[in-house]
Amino acid sequence: MFKLLVLPGDGIGPEIIRETLRVVDWARNAGLRIELSEALAGGASIDAVGAPIAEDVVDQALASDAVLFGAVGGPKWDHLPRAQRPEMGILRLRQALDLYANLRPAVCFDELLDASALKPDLIRGLDILIVREATAGVYFSLPRANEVDADGQRRAYDTQAYTEAEIARVCRTAFALARTRQRRVCSVDKANVMETGALWRAVASEVAAEYPDVESSHMYADNCAMQLVRRPDQFDVIVTDNLFGDILSDAAAALTGSLGLLPSASLSGLGQGGRSRGLYEPIHGSAPDIAGQGVANPIATILSFALCLRWSFDRADLADALERAVRQVVSSGVRTPDIAHPGVAAVSTLQMTDAVLAALDAQ
Amino acid sequence: MFKLLVLPGDGIGPEIIRETLRVVDWARNAGLRIELSEALAGGASIDAVGAPIAEDVVDQALASDAVLFGAVGGPKWDHLPRAQRPEMGILRLRQALDLYANLRPAVCFDELLDASALKPDLIRGLDILIVREATAGVYFSLPRANEVDADGQRRAYDTQAYTEAEIARVCRTAFALARTRQRRVCSVDKANVMETGALWRAVASEVAAEYPDVESSHMYADNCAMQLVRRPDQFDVIVTDNLFGDILSDAAAALTGSLGLLPSASLSGLGQGGRSRGLYEPIHGSAPDIAGQGVANPIATILSFALCLRWSFDRADLADALERAVRQVVSSGVRTPDIAHPGVAAVSTLQMTDAVLAALDAQ
Ligand SMILES: CC(C)[C@H](C(=O)O)[C@@H](O)C(=O)O
Ligand SMILES: CC(C)[C@H](C(=O)O)[C@@H](O)C(=O)O
Repeated sequence: MFKLLVLPGDGIGPEIIRETLRVVDWARNAGLRIELSEALAGGASIDAVGAPIAEDVVDQALASDAVLFGAVGGPKWDHLPRAQRPEMGILRLRQALDLYANLRPAVCFDELLDASALKPDLIRGLDILIVREATAGVYFSLPRANEVDADGQRRAYDTQAYTEAEIARVCRTAFALARTRQRRVCSVDKANVMETGALWRAVASEVAAEYPDVESSHMYADNCAMQLVRRPDQFDVIVTDNLFGDILSDAAAALTGSLGLLPSASLSGLGQGGRSRGLYEPIHGSAPDIAGQGVANPIATILSFALCLRWSFDRADLADALERAVRQVVSSGVRTPDIAHPGVAAVSTLQMTDAVLAALDAQ
Repeated sequence: MFKLLVLPGDGIGPEIIRETLRVVDWARNAGLRIELSEALAGGASIDAVGAPIAEDVVDQALASDAVLFGAVGGPKWDHLPRAQRPEMGILRLRQALDLYANLRPAVCFDELLDASALKPDLIRGLDILIVREATAGVYFSLPRANEVDADGQRRAYDTQAYTEAEIARVCRTAFALARTRQRRVCSVDKANVMETGALWRAVASEVAAEYPDVESSHMYADNCAMQLVRRPDQFDVIVTDNLFGDILSDAAAALTGSLGLLPSASLSGLGQGGRSRGLYEPIHGSAPDIAGQGVANPIATILSFALCLRWSFDRADLADALERAVRQVVSSGVRTPDIAHPGVAAVSTLQMTDAVLAALDAQ
């Protein structure tokens, strides 16, 4: 029996989660025992309890095998100071659950090639996995402050700290995952400028030596940004720190032209038998402009649940089936408005999910 | 009389600088009085005096109006520890000369549209100026160290610090430059995560209020990476910190497909009468693989000298003429091997420069 905590969040979060829960039911009917619970996160939580995530919800997450997260944020909470904003809920969960490996696949749906800014030949079949360290680095290191100097001048600072253990474990996740793919890992840092970069490079090299069957390389973060644009297919797995991962994974996702369809997973290592506690969420935002209309694309959330099946529920078979069904539906031309060609009739969130469930039935 | 210090550096540095000096002669013939000197930097300096830049060369730079820099680095010096590597020469100069505004134009040469990874419609006529803070932030802030903890574990940390003065002056450079362009500045940070980001956003907003005729906006760095790929033409001037600027300017340059042609300028503010001390260099590297063959493309260095004419020598007229001449040459199809279509005859570094000088003569 697996415990799944569902955090719908704000904006389109509740509607894409509602539909994804129908896919969770499909997994249950396929024999998977899942105990569901639901709680507040983001703006919805701020409105109800005054914090982007309540501590008892963090505890609930800690007692769960996986968290399925919708999306958070919206204009209503934009004026709040940083520490009280909706996004802090997700950062708090990453740290509390020790979800140090943020997996961000940048996969191109060839049916949506048109939507990419890149020339089709450069991204057809693209499949990059970015493994981003997500519980250390500049996001969480101390000291950090915004202060006023003796002479009245404002001054701010952040610290980016990494230990060898923090670097090694996320690199091991990347190398282990590379074994299920093309067996190539590119580790990205600024070893030419940063102390943490130099340590990152040293430790990544040591971990690489543990995986002699995986090809490894190093690249500076600026060059990686350039290479992602110029020739993205040179990459299989990229492993990098929290801040570089934030930027490079968004750049990589944008390349594919399939932004609205991309899932993500945050894992605390692959653990025994390939299972890990995990948090799963679409990479897109809460899209307040279309919230409540029933037209949001549920695919990224459904594919996030596929990653949950794969990494937290140890059911690669069901994950494969679900990913195949989504591919079929996209190939068959079913389109929510965000991915529809102008002038082509689009379906609703519900109808898109119907199509995925029908494709699963037909398998 | 302007003093120009020339630092050819390594790899193709000496050959592209040699040709650019012919363009410097053209400027002299056009009535500009320039006193030239030359010194070592990068690997060449390491070999001669054991450091990537000698202190008396730094002094020479301090006594000059401008520095024209080739390129540094190569396999010979790759094994050296960070502090002794060729690139440290350029970081040392940025700091010693207080070159806080690194201008990185990302301009698309429409004749080279084919070479871009992006669909032509997205980048035709693209002209983005990235203004990167270059003397503070994580590149230079203390404390920073790589150490071993009591329990024997390695740990590294860097500090990213900014004062309001450091942020304000580079933002003013960006807003002042925007007035010579489309009057739009996008300030980029991670105010949702970093203390320095929050201060950056606050100060950028204050500076924006000093330029009511310039449209201003803010964007998170991850979103900016995404937007650069998806719709680069939404940007006019981008201003950002040292580290984000390093990554985003390389991504932006890669978009254009004109990488080998792009110049850069590092200024210490625009000063009185639009003049600033400056360091000018191509954004490409030292290309050790083709060094010494006389086939390197001198255009990026020649255009760097155009920026020198504009910002340090207060001769926008000559800068305009030179940029026009380069455009004409590229339009007329003259190509060094790096930008030649396969099967089309390419010219040498010398011949490319001949063509630019001829175009200048014909004006
Ligand atoms: C919302 C924000 C704090 C977060 C981050 O910067 O990590 C987001 O950009 C992400 O990539 O998950
Ligand atoms: C060579 C390196 C230290 C430098 C930097 O990181 O600033 C380079 O990438 C640049 O952008 O000028």
